[in-house]
Amino acid sequence: MNQKLNIIKIGGNVIDNPSACTRFLRDFSALEGSKILIHGGGKIATKIAVKLDIETKMVDGRRITDLPMLEVVTMVYGGLVNKQIVAQLQVLGCNAIGLTGADGGVILAKKRPKKEIDYGYVGDVEKVDNLLISNFLINNLTPVFAPLTFDIEGNILNTNADTQASSVAVAMANEYDVNLIYCFEKKGVLSNPEDDSSVINQLTPELYARYKQEGVINAGMIPKLDNAFAALQKGVKKVIICHADEVKEAVAIGTKGTQMML
Amino acid sequence: MNQKLNIIKIGGNVIDNPSACTRFLRDFSALEGSKILIHGGGKIATKIAVKLDIETKMVDGRRITDLPMLEVVTMVYGGLVNKQIVAQLQVLGCNAIGLTGADGGVILAKKRPKKEIDYGYVGDVEKVDNLLISNFLINNLTPVFAPLTFDIEGNILNTNADTQASSVAVAMANEYDVNLIYCFEKKGVLSNPEDDSSVINQLTPELYARYKQEGVINAGMIPKLDNAFAALQKGVKKVIICHADEVKEAVAIGTKGTQMML
Repeated sequence: MNQKLNIIKIGGNVIDNPSACTRFLRDFSALEGSKILIHGGGKIATKIAVKLDIETKMVDGRRITDLPMLEVVTMVYGGLVNKQIVAQLQVLGCNAIGLTGADGGVILAKKRPKKEIDYGYVGDVEKVDNLLISNFLINNLTPVFAPLTFDIEGNILNTNADTQASSVAVAMANEYDVNLIYCFEKKGVLSNPEDDSSVINQLTPELYARYKQEGVINAGMIPKLDNAFAALQKGVKKVIICHADEVKEAVAIGTKGTQMML
Repeated sequence: MNQKLNIIKIGGNVIDNPSACTRFLRDFSALEGSKILIHGGGKIATKIAVKLDIETKMVDGRRITDLPMLEVVTMVYGGLVNKQIVAQLQVLGCNAIGLTGADGGVILAKKRPKKEIDYGYVGDVEKVDNLLISNFLINNLTPVFAPLTFDIEGNILNTNADTQASSVAVAMANEYDVNLIYCFEKKGVLSNPEDDSSVINQLTPELYARYKQEGVINAGMIPKLDNAFAALQKGVKKVIICHADEVKEAVAIGTKGTQMML
């Protein structure tokens, strides 16, 4: 049996709430064994862009990363958010190392080609250097990834943290038994979006297909869940979707959140 | 004989000039053997602070790092400047990894105690984890340090890049034959500050003492040079002060800049 590895993604809503973030980091640092954190960006980038008079361009609800916005997300995600998390984890006894995809060339991406929409400096992951990440883990370091990658032309690229997390998880699955955990503001995948207690505890591909057909699962969750099942098919052992406050129980005991397996 | 290690510090004036910075990074990436880059901050932090309506407080010509300014330097030095350099180096074939002192806990500092002046979130280096840096070097990674450290309370601390460079150099001197190279906008230590060609090629402690006494050396250079000789006394093999455009000749051949040895 391979060694276990927990790869945890926290969303912007946790980042944006200092006390929730501190609670989460305390729980994260207490998780035993090898682990990786991938954080989203949060609203701080937008706030700082506003103050810098940089317009936030959105198309179909998606942010366009033009050059001025790229500089903002590089600063905010790669500098402010990432380093504050790393420094907090260090004090909690977790030997964190903050990384973007450019550092050590660990996550190479490709600038998304311009089609109907030009997303600008947005990256789709091409290659994860799993050996370098293993080397960090063996040396007892905990990688903390900002949602930034780079391309062969030396551009930093804004990258979706969810897909970055699943790319890292899939890359590590050869060598480790990987749990991929998405932490967000709900207690799991809900069968009734109005009812926070309606968490679906287990989700298999069969159940998922049925729930989708019956319209039980919120449309907004479908890309996330499709992505999760794709990761499972590529060798990730388990995907968990849970509240940031319940990561300990969800990971260590398996009693919280939505637990997804093949 | 130990392996060689070149530790190079570039100042803010190089960072602030994109074409000078690109030239420098090309030369840096071409240097053979193990190397480390430590970069200053440049004026970008001040510019961004102005746009964000954050006042730059100076006392006796020194920047005071209050909490809002700390956030700016964390973003700008640790995010924007550091990651842009790393991505550029990656493309130049140099496997750079961007670090602050908090990453891997590699440079622990202490917040400077409040005396006559409260410098705010400014760190004085306490401890460098030379084993972690060696591990990076052995794995063919080139550490690129932002001028930021952290303390045991989890604060990021603004840190003088010159002293950070000499602290890293001294820590690595047990294991490596370390050259510490300060790149700036002059061709070396000048005997006549008005004459850029008046570079002092060699500086021994005896010569330095004499030049200081005779007033040959500019007062502004004295703290830098005192610091350089202190590093030599603590085991660094050579300190070089040179122009960023001449780093290749200064390091590889020793024909440029001011070369300081005991």
